Amino acid sequence: MRKIIVIGIGAGDPDHITMQAVNALRRVDVFFVLDKGEVKQELVDLRQEILDRYVPDHRVVHGQDPERDRTTEAYVEAVDDWRRRRADVCQEMITANLGEDQTGAFLVWGDPTLYDSTLAILGDIASRGFEFETEVIPGISSVSALVARHQVSLNQVGRAVQITTGRRLAAEWPSDVDDVVVMLDARTAFANHVEKDAEIYWGAYIGTPDEILISGRLSEVADQIVSARAEARERKGWIMDTYLLRRGQGAPPPREAP
Amino acid sequence: MRKIIVIGIGAGDPDHITMQAVNALRRVDVFFVLDKGEVKQELVDLRQEILDRYVPDHRVVHGQDPERDRTTEAYVEAVDDWRRRRADVCQEMITANLGEDQTGAFLVWGDPTLYDSTLAILGDIASRGFEFETEVIPGISSVSALVARHQVSLNQVGRAVQITTGRRLAAEWPSDVDDVVVMLDARTAFANHVEKDAEIYWGAYIGTPDEILISGRLSEVADQIVSARAEARERKGWIMDTYLLRRGQGAPPPREAP
Repeated sequence: MRKIIVIGIGAGDPDHITMQAVNALRRVDVFFVLDKGEVKQELVDLRQEILDRYVPDHRVVHGQDPERDRTTEAYVEAVDDWRRRRADVCQEMITANLGEDQTGAFLVWGDPTLYDSTLAILGDIASRGFEFETEVIPGISSVSALVARHQVSLNQVGRAVQITTGRRLAAEWPSDVDDVVVMLDARTAFANHVEKDAEIYWGAYIGTPDEILISGRLSEVADQIVSARAEARERKGWIMDTYLLRRGQGAPPPREAP
Repeated sequence: MRKIIVIGIGAGDPDHITMQAVNALRRVDVFFVLDKGEVKQELVDLRQEILDRYVPDHRVVHGQDPERDRTTEAYVEAVDDWRRRRADVCQEMITANLGEDQTGAFLVWGDPTLYDSTLAILGDIASRGFEFETEVIPGISSVSALVARHQVSLNQVGRAVQITTGRRLAAEWPSDVDDVVVMLDARTAFANHVEKDAEIYWGAYIGTPDEILISGRLSEVADQIVSARAEARERKGWIMDTYLLRRGQGAPPPREAP
């Protein structure tokens, strides 16, 4: 039977890759890539560097990533529709390029189980009756990489931590939790909460040479982060950032960014 | 200046280790280990296997991990006290064994930023005026490893996920969140929620030859998990397990455990 491996390759530093991922890369006959319209060339180069290093003789098949409808307010429906059209493209790539007993792979930035759609796309394809085995290789997420760089724990002792989206944090601070990690935030939702007694640990392009880290009292550094983010995005044409917000008196003083 | 590297070595599979961690291991002069009274020999062996593989000529210094007061209801205070006494032991190990320009390391199962006390211990030591540099190397957490093995996403599209403790889940389901990961659960707190419309993805000894995975409707598999957990704990003398609970109609049907 055909096999598809979903391989987490870490948050931006090529050395985030695990030995398990390296061993998986070497079992792959064909790598599948969905090319986004807006190309982040550095990420393409990083992925290529990983392939060249561990599988010099690799085969890559490219598909055209369909556009997502970003005009609608119906976020989940728009993502569902997008996923189905991506599943069409992926199924076609697999059918056309992967032999019955071969192994294909998708490389995923960060961890394939955290705010990534590859597993859902494969689930969609499987639900159509297209048969294949799957395997998932965990990776270092941008969340783990962020807090490691800031040298802080994700959680406080015996406490919960919530991972959420900018969209949700913009609406309100989550109930009953003081430690909140935010991903996919294009709207700097932390700025809606500057009146709160909180620390922020923010990072962009984590693990890459362009990495930016800022931390401190939210009320004191929010403007600085908004400016740094806008400037970096303008300069590079894209940004990937994430942050931890830690509310309340239990918060330790922020350390100097290393 | 002295340097201490906190190195995440993954959730139990030696191949979870990252290239970044391997490179860090090779910069270390002295590895520090806190020996727990209750020795989990397989974990000791696994750690030894990693050291032997990547740093055959390594030096390990052992300290005696103080006992935690498990009789008190004052959980946070008991952990604070325990951490201070562990900091005493660690500071002594470092002072006695690490030269002024040397590098020491602590190896941490999973990810050092998630429900691990090493960073807090080093913070304690630093707050006493003992000067050293620190570096944190992220690792594959048991959370990432769990959901990768079950081949499910940690979050649903555009939704939040909360990571919490068995103690907290036993008290109540967290507010405003349908996806909950539970760590440090010695009391099978999921069994308090069997009346809920939820799926569970449970795993023990993830990434090791003894790995157990069970998933399904919570109401249908809760008893099976309680039995499997008790049996495994009895047989091996210890258990490390974690699980994802996914509430509501949005939940996809559970897949066959791979």
